[in-house]
Amino acid sequence: MNINSNDFKDIDPGDRVLMGPGPSNVSARVLQAMSAPCIGHLDPYFLLIMDETQRLLKYLFQTENPFTIPVSGTGSAGMETCFVNLIEPGDEVVVCTNGVFGMRMADIVKRLDGKLIQVDGEWGRAIDPEVVRTAIRGKNPKIIALVHAETSTGVCQPLKDIAHIAHEAGALFLVDMVTSLGGVEGAVDSTEIDVAYSGTQKCISCPPGLSPVTFGPAAINALESRKSPIVSWYLDMSMVRSYWGSERKYHHTAPINMIYALREALRIIAEEGLEARFARHQLNHRALVAGIEAMGLSMFVPEPERLPSLNAVRIPEGVNDIKVRKALLTDFGIEIGGGLGDLQGKIWRVGLMGHSSSRKNVFLFLSAIETILNAEGAKITTGALNEVSALYANT
Amino acid sequence: MNINSNDFKDIDPGDRVLMGPGPSNVSARVLQAMSAPCIGHLDPYFLLIMDETQRLLKYLFQTENPFTIPVSGTGSAGMETCFVNLIEPGDEVVVCTNGVFGMRMADIVKRLDGKLIQVDGEWGRAIDPEVVRTAIRGKNPKIIALVHAETSTGVCQPLKDIAHIAHEAGALFLVDMVTSLGGVEGAVDSTEIDVAYSGTQKCISCPPGLSPVTFGPAAINALESRKSPIVSWYLDMSMVRSYWGSERKYHHTAPINMIYALREALRIIAEEGLEARFARHQLNHRALVAGIEAMGLSMFVPEPERLPSLNAVRIPEGVNDIKVRKALLTDFGIEIGGGLGDLQGKIWRVGLMGHSSSRKNVFLFLSAIETILNAEGAKITTGALNEVSALYANT
Repeated sequence: MNINSNDFKDIDPGDRVLMGPGPSNVSARVLQAMSAPCIGHLDPYFLLIMDETQRLLKYLFQTENPFTIPVSGTGSAGMETCFVNLIEPGDEVVVCTNGVFGMRMADIVKRLDGKLIQVDGEWGRAIDPEVVRTAIRGKNPKIIALVHAETSTGVCQPLKDIAHIAHEAGALFLVDMVTSLGGVEGAVDSTEIDVAYSGTQKCISCPPGLSPVTFGPAAINALESRKSPIVSWYLDMSMVRSYWGSERKYHHTAPINMIYALREALRIIAEEGLEARFARHQLNHRALVAGIEAMGLSMFVPEPERLPSLNAVRIPEGVNDIKVRKALLTDFGIEIGGGLGDLQGKIWRVGLMGHSSSRKNVFLFLSAIETILNAEGAKITTGALNEVSALYANT
Repeated sequence: MNINSNDFKDIDPGDRVLMGPGPSNVSARVLQAMSAPCIGHLDPYFLLIMDETQRLLKYLFQTENPFTIPVSGTGSAGMETCFVNLIEPGDEVVVCTNGVFGMRMADIVKRLDGKLIQVDGEWGRAIDPEVVRTAIRGKNPKIIALVHAETSTGVCQPLKDIAHIAHEAGALFLVDMVTSLGGVEGAVDSTEIDVAYSGTQKCISCPPGLSPVTFGPAAINALESRKSPIVSWYLDMSMVRSYWGSERKYHHTAPINMIYALREALRIIAEEGLEARFARHQLNHRALVAGIEAMGLSMFVPEPERLPSLNAVRIPEGVNDIKVRKALLTDFGIEIGGGLGDLQGKIWRVGLMGHSSSRKNVFLFLSAIETILNAEGAKITTGALNEVSALYANT
């Protein structure tokens, strides 16, 4: 256990262009806010920052839900928070699975002794509301859960029809907004979402470490009328509420500096405005797709179901996935993601999230991938960037 | 849900001297490391930082345990991690309770359907090993758990005898090292601790947000031979191990920048050396106590059981707790803690943890409290600082 402190150098991650499935690039303003001096979790100044963070989060989720807070863990902690607070053993829970994150939800439901009703969908396609309607016939689900933005496939799930089906069945509508919140329209109140969670490192462009959640009135009611204890102490929202609420009752020490960072990232979002931000994500997505298709490559997800924040591109026949991604990282400093599970080696996942969703990054990625694929001897149509320039010029 | 971004100012917490129960002050080096650019959780550079963090954590815990990592949540997430991975329903679990954090352990055991054997101790005193021995007679405990450094009372629990009792009984010895790790001697391997957790914001002086844990061979064996699933997905160490181990299998997105911060805080600890660091914590603690007692005040915990990192001072009769703490914060920028539960209004909790454990802070606190108590009309013996100077001069 001896150690030589000279073996360790200063932290210096270099200059990465983060165009993978998250984290996205974090702006200097957010990094600076995060490095403000740490103070106590009950300091009057920190309580003010908590209030402001909640106000800004409500704006971001487009909700009036008073219980809208950042959970002290990454996105998956937010997922677990929603289920662990709302499921009691034996509760029927519908989970729509058309990618890795739906599967993760199903896994969590089983661990919590929920009666899982799994609605399997094709990976790379949205879930058909009629399949959900059929699946719950004769059942009494407490929750219908799905993923708004499937990070593993690049699918954007339409929400309204399934929200309607959930409420007709008397169920809570629970939505994973990890890769949509702050980049893709998905207003909690007007869409009638009862409970949702997200992560900070995607379209919010704050470092990973927090998970914004919002619980609407029906979810709070389910929480308050539980008969069995919440199995997690750390994620027990009935107690965490007393800290984020007016009582300010100590539960666990909040991750102070991470909340500084989130508060600044949310302020940047408020400055841009949600409408402009969603439009920016759409535009850069359309430009990327235009370039990809002009090059002769194709998208994995059909056009109306594509997510602007995560673009799944089919890897051309005969091209070495790992080699291309390594060249992107080494020669250009660009990180993109590979496929997960069965999609490994079949798709690339190109993120255009938050601060990373920019015209600059679209051009950089397209020119880099064109160069690398040319060097690999792949059949690429040249001149794609002209199409992309034209698209930006006409918008 | 309209918002005006001009309502929000730059983050500016001012200059606080953190002498409460945590967080402690974070050095500029750690804040700077934390604000390095965020990169991907599978980036080769980040994998190197993970390896280095593990090496440094093993040094800090004084262990060879390969599974020594920071859990992605604050100290209480570390507590939950240890229990949720090791308890199966019906397992007998001994928890020693002589303060808030022992009570929290007991709460968690019950939520996990463990058979709780609670060994109640007096708040402000260490647990007597013989009481533990008696409590387990005729039982078959899987775990004996206690708190090394009770942050709510300022007691330092001797570990060796109870470790011995645990192993004689074939139980795992589980230790909360939240307020001791990095400030108080407590070597995991030589003390025969099987599983331990801590927090980053106490004697490590990194912002809150991570919980270092270490699982020894017997704990890993218990984890691997479980019959029932681990109820938490987020804290499932059988999966998290595959990410921190050589497989590097994606589980959840690590809190990248928090890990930069921890890695730097650990590097600072390695530079100082554990022995020197423990001696510094002892010295400043002794100086604080000398000043407190010279002033005519008294400590809550008897001398041999006192924790150097958290000093519980009895509030003199007739002195208004809240008023004094407010004056400390407002006039001097000093945060200290009040008492929790039955100790509210009876003690002050003065932290001397990590970066906050300094001669400068001892003098600042003593001079500030003397001034405030004088102004309150409390009976204070003057000249206490001379005693403190003498103590430092003679060391």
